[in-house]
Amino acid sequence: MSIVLGPNSYGKAENRVVRIYRDSSRHEIRDINVSSALRGDFTAAHLSGDQARVLPTDTQKNTAYAYAKKVGLEQIEDYALALGRHFVDDIEPVEGARIDVDEYAWERIAVGGKLHDHSFVRKGQEIRNTVVTIDGLGDSQSAWVVSGLRDLVVLKSTGSEFAGFLVDDYTTLPETHDRVMATSLTVRWRYLTTDCDWATAYDEIRTVLVEKFASVHSLALQQTLFEMGKGVLQARGDVAEVKLSAPNIHHFAYDLERFGLANNQEVFHVDDRPYGLIQVTVQRDDVTDAGSAWEAVPALR
Amino acid sequence: MSIVLGPNSYGKAENRVVRIYRDSSRHEIRDINVSSALRGDFTAAHLSGDQARVLPTDTQKNTAYAYAKKVGLEQIEDYALALGRHFVDDIEPVEGARIDVDEYAWERIAVGGKLHDHSFVRKGQEIRNTVVTIDGLGDSQSAWVVSGLRDLVVLKSTGSEFAGFLVDDYTTLPETHDRVMATSLTVRWRYLTTDCDWATAYDEIRTVLVEKFASVHSLALQQTLFEMGKGVLQARGDVAEVKLSAPNIHHFAYDLERFGLANNQEVFHVDDRPYGLIQVTVQRDDVTDAGSAWEAVPALR
Amino acid sequence: MSIVLGPNSYGKAENRVVRIYRDSSRHEIRDINVSSALRGDFTAAHLSGDQARVLPTDTQKNTAYAYAKKVGLEQIEDYALALGRHFVDDIEPVEGARIDVDEYAWERIAVGGKLHDHSFVRKGQEIRNTVVTIDGLGDSQSAWVVSGLRDLVVLKSTGSEFAGFLVDDYTTLPETHDRVMATSLTVRWRYLTTDCDWATAYDEIRTVLVEKFASVHSLALQQTLFEMGKGVLQARGDVAEVKLSAPNIHHFAYDLERFGLANNQEVFHVDDRPYGLIQVTVQRDDVTDAGSAWEAVPALR
Amino acid sequence: MSIVLGPNSYGKAENRVVRIYRDSSRHEIRDINVSSALRGDFTAAHLSGDQARVLPTDTQKNTAYAYAKKVGLEQIEDYALALGRHFVDDIEPVEGARIDVDEYAWERIAVGGKLHDHSFVRKGQEIRNTVVTIDGLGDSQSAWVVSGLRDLVVLKSTGSEFAGFLVDDYTTLPETHDRVMATSLTVRWRYLTTDCDWATAYDEIRTVLVEKFASVHSLALQQTLFEMGKGVLQARGDVAEVKLSAPNIHHFAYDLERFGLANNQEVFHVDDRPYGLIQVTVQRDDVTDAGSAWEAVPALR
Repeated sequence: MSIVLGPNSYGKAENRVVRIYRDSSRHEIRDINVSSALRGDFTAAHLSGDQARVLPTDTQKNTAYAYAKKVGLEQIEDYALALGRHFVDDIEPVEGARIDVDEYAWERIAVGGKLHDHSFVRKGQEIRNTVVTIDGLGDSQSAWVVSGLRDLVVLKSTGSEFAGFLVDDYTTLPETHDRVMATSLTVRWRYLTTDCDWATAYDEIRTVLVEKFASVHSLALQQTLFEMGKGVLQARGDVAEVKLSAPNIHHFAYDLERFGLANNQEVFHVDDRPYGLIQVTVQRDDVTDAGSAWEAVPALR
Repeated sequence: MSIVLGPNSYGKAENRVVRIYRDSSRHEIRDINVSSALRGDFTAAHLSGDQARVLPTDTQKNTAYAYAKKVGLEQIEDYALALGRHFVDDIEPVEGARIDVDEYAWERIAVGGKLHDHSFVRKGQEIRNTVVTIDGLGDSQSAWVVSGLRDLVVLKSTGSEFAGFLVDDYTTLPETHDRVMATSLTVRWRYLTTDCDWATAYDEIRTVLVEKFASVHSLALQQTLFEMGKGVLQARGDVAEVKLSAPNIHHFAYDLERFGLANNQEVFHVDDRPYGLIQVTVQRDDVTDAGSAWEAVPALR
Repeated sequence: MSIVLGPNSYGKAENRVVRIYRDSSRHEIRDINVSSALRGDFTAAHLSGDQARVLPTDTQKNTAYAYAKKVGLEQIEDYALALGRHFVDDIEPVEGARIDVDEYAWERIAVGGKLHDHSFVRKGQEIRNTVVTIDGLGDSQSAWVVSGLRDLVVLKSTGSEFAGFLVDDYTTLPETHDRVMATSLTVRWRYLTTDCDWATAYDEIRTVLVEKFASVHSLALQQTLFEMGKGVLQARGDVAEVKLSAPNIHHFAYDLERFGLANNQEVFHVDDRPYGLIQVTVQRDDVTDAGSAWEAVPALR
Repeated sequence: MSIVLGPNSYGKAENRVVRIYRDSSRHEIRDINVSSALRGDFTAAHLSGDQARVLPTDTQKNTAYAYAKKVGLEQIEDYALALGRHFVDDIEPVEGARIDVDEYAWERIAVGGKLHDHSFVRKGQEIRNTVVTIDGLGDSQSAWVVSGLRDLVVLKSTGSEFAGFLVDDYTTLPETHDRVMATSLTVRWRYLTTDCDWATAYDEIRTVLVEKFASVHSLALQQTLFEMGKGVLQARGDVAEVKLSAPNIHHFAYDLERFGLANNQEVFHVDDRPYGLIQVTVQRDDVTDAGSAWEAVPALR
C-alpha cells in the first residue's frame, strides 16, 4: 500500500484574548485573535490514534492566554515570537509553529475634550496582523515575521483611468479616463528582522500605503499597487517583500439621462459581485530567500 | 371563506448609492445603502396578480439613484424625506412609504499632513441610519424621522459592577465590583421635527452617548443605557424618545492561577455567544404619540 | 423633568444548546439556538442600578441548559413554553417572557445503505423557529406560539410573469412573460393553540409552502406569496395568520447576443443587491386578536 | 534600485452564473460562483500602467457567462478546463490561468409526491468546488484538477475518545473516552486525470468521507481524517492526494449537577471560538509531482 501521511498541522484557532494594562489609573488595552498551529512528527496520532506526542489544542489555548500575562502583549510580533518559540523549544515533539495574530485597534473616548483613562471605542478601519513562523530546533532554527493589514477600504473619486487594454471577441468595456477607484486592501510584508520597533514600522508602512494610493495618478490598479509596494520597500530597509491583494470594488455611473438628469461621474451604483481581483508582489532582488516564511501564511484574499 | 389579505408592503432593498460632489477640485463623498417600502391598496396584485397599481421595485431603484442627483444627498434625513414624499404624493396608489438609509462615513487621506482633495479612507466605526415614515395623503399626511446608529463598539476596563441581584436555584454567578463592560451599541431616536440641522444633531447625540458611557460609574448595563438615553433627551429638545439595544459582550477573566500567574483583571477571554441583551427605551412623558413612527422600523438587535 | 423609562426587556441571547437522547444505542439529536427576554418592573435597575429584582442573564442561560434536560427538547414549541412559563410563574418580578428558538436539522449518515445509530450530517436548508410569548400572571396569563422557518431558498425556472404594472417617469423595466423567480423565504405563522403535534404541523406547513410555490403560475411574487399563505390556513385550522417575507433574488438574462450566442432564458447573472422585498400577511378575519403575540417577534427580513 | 515585480495575477472574482437547461419541459439547473485569475508577463501594466497586454477583468466576466452557453455547464470541472484553456490558448499574453468554481446544489420540489419539472429548492449542505490550473503553452502545457467540498457539517454523538496525550505545565484538559465529535469539513483532492466522470467521482468520494467519519471509532480527529483520506485514495485510483481541514467544533457537557440534574453526555454547550483546527494531507507516494496544482489553490481554512 502506497498511501502515506503528507504535510499536516494542528492547533487552536481564534483565541479571543484581551489584555488590559492597569499598572496606573490610565489603562491600556490590547485586543487580539490568536491562532496557533504546530508541526512535527505526529504520524502515530494519524495512523493509530496514539496521542502520546500530541500537545492538546486546549493546552495551546491555555498557553496563549498565559503568555498574554507572562510575556505581555505590547506588540503582536513580540508576543507571537515568544509563543511560537515556546512551542518549538519547550515541547519535545514540536518542530515548527505558526502563530497568526489579528489585532483590533481601540482609541480612548474623549469626555469634555479630555481622553478618558479607562473607556475606549473600537477604532474600526483596518485589522493589523502578523504571522510568525518558527522552523527547526537549536542553532538551525529559523524565525520569520510576516506582518500586514486587511479591510483598509480606500477610494479616490477621480485621478484613475483604464484605457488601451487588450481587446478580444468578448470585450465590451469602454475605455475611461476618469473613474472612481475603490478597494479593500489586504497587504502583507516580510520583515528581514525579528527585532524591531514594530509599532513604528507599522505606522510608517500604513502611511506610505494610503499616501501612495492617494497621490499616484492611476492608469491601472496594478500600477497603483506596485507603487504602493515600492514605496514600502523604499521606506523600510528591513522589509524584503510586500504582497498586495486588492478587490476592485466597481462603482458604475448610473444612467440618469433616461430621466432627464445629467450624471457627470456624480451618482454611482456600487456592485458587490463580481469584482476585479488584483494580486501583486513587490520585492527586492538582492535579499535572502523567503524560506518557509510564506508557507503557512493564508492566501491573500 | 374567511381568509383575507392583511398588512403588506413591498419595495427595493439595499440600493448601494454613492454620490460624489465634484463642483470644485475638493470632492465630497456620500455613501449609503437605501431601501424603500411602499404601502397602499395592493389587493389586486395579491389576489389576482393584477399589477396595474404596482410601481415596480425596479422603478423604486431608479428613483433612489435619480434623487441622489435631483435633490442631492447632503443629509440622509432630507434625502429620505424627499424620496418618501415623492412616492406617496406622486404615485397615486401609494398611501405610505418607509425609507431606510444606512450611511458609511469616509474621511480624507492625509498626504504629507495635508488632507487630499479626492482620496478617502472608510472611517469604520458606527453606521449612521435613518428611517423615515410617510403616512397618508394631503393635509392628513404625517412624517416621522427616526435616526440612529449601530455597530459602535465601546468598552470600559473598570468602573463597572454587578452585584445585589436576584438569586434563584439556577443562579451560580458570583458578584463582582470590578469588571470589563463592553457592548456594540444600536441606538435609535425619534425626532419631533422634520426640519433640523441633522449633522449637528447627530454629532451631539453621538458625543453624549459615548461620554455618558465613559463617565457613568456602572452598577448595571441597564443603568448605563438609561443614563445615555436621558443625556440625549437633555441635550436635544427635539428628540422625543431614545431606544437603546446593547449586547453585553462578556469578558471573562482567564484562570491563570493554575499556571502560577496572577490575573488581576488583566487577561480576558471574549466570548461570542451567548451574550446578555439589554433593550431600553427612554422617553419624554409629555410629547405627542409616536404614531406610525416605529411601526416599520426594524426591531433593534 | 419629564424623562421616564419606557418599554424595556433583558435576557440572554443565542445559547447554543445541543441535546442528545441516548436512552438506546440509537441516539437522537436536537440542536438549537435559544434566546430569552424578560419583562416586568425593572425600574430600579435602570434608575439607580439596584439589581434586587433582576434575575441575571447568566441565570437565564443556566436555566435554558437545565430545561433541555429537565423538560427535554423534543419539540421546540413545548420547550419554549415550559421555559417561558417558568420565568413568569416562578420568578416573582417577571411579568412577561419571550423565548426565541432556532432549530438546525440533522439527518443520519447512511453507511452501506443503513442509517447509522449515532452519526449525523447537518441537513442544511431552512432553519425552523418558534417565538413563544408569555404575558401576565395566574388566570390572566396569555401564551402565544408563533412558529416559522427561514433561509428556505426556492426557484422556478419558468412559470413566472411580470407585466401590466404601473408606469411613471422613472420606469424603465420591460414587461416579461417568462422569467426566473427565486427567493429565500422567511415565514412565520401564529398558532391558535399551545398544545399540538408541532412536528406534524411543521411538516404539513412546509409542504404546503413549497408545493404552492411550485404549482402556482405566478403573475407576481405577491400573488404567489398570498397563495402560499392561503394554502397554510386552508390546511391548518389551528393557524390564525401567516406572515411571509420574500426577497426577490433577481436573475438577469446575460446579454450573449453581443458574442453571437443565443440566450433563450438559459444563462443568468444572479445579483446580490438591491433586491425586491415583498412582505405579506394572510389571515383569518374571524379569529381572536393577536394580542402580544407578534409584539416581541423580530421583524421579518 | 533593486525593487522588482514578483509573482502576480489578476482576474474577475465571484461571477454568479446560473445556467438553466430547458431543452424539454423538464428543466435542469446549474448554479455556480466562478472566479478566474490569469498569469503572464504583465510587467508593463505594473511599472508604467500600460494595459496593452491586459485582457480586462470585465472581458473575463463576459467570457465566463458566454462559456456557460458555448461549452455548457454540465460538470464544473469540464467548464473550468474549457474556460482556463481558452484564456491560455487564445489570449496571447496569458501563460497561466486558474479557474475556481463553487457549485450550489438544488433538488426538485415534490408536488403531491411527484418531482416538479421546473421548481427547485436549494439543497443546502456542502458546497462542491473545483480549482483548475492551466500552466504553459502548446505541448508543454499542464492542466490540473483539484476538486473538493466545504461546509459539510458532521457530528457523532459517541464513538470518539481523546486520551493519552502529552501533558505540560499548561495542560488542564481531562481525558475522555466518550465525547461528541463535530466538524465542518473542507476537503480537496487532486485528480490524476483531466477526463473523468466527475459527477460519479464526486458522489463516490463524498460517500466515502461521510461513511468513514461515521464508522471509524475515533481516538483522535487526526486519525479519523487520515482514515477518510485513505478511504478516498482506496476508492479512486485517479486521485493522487487528499487534503482535509477540520475545525473541531467543541461540544462541552454543561454542568447540571449544580442544579440536581444528571448530565450523562446529554446536554452540551456548543462553543464558537476558539476551535481546534486539524489539517491533514493523505497521499500516494508513487505518483507524479503535484507541480503547480496546489500553488494557486486557496489555503484550506
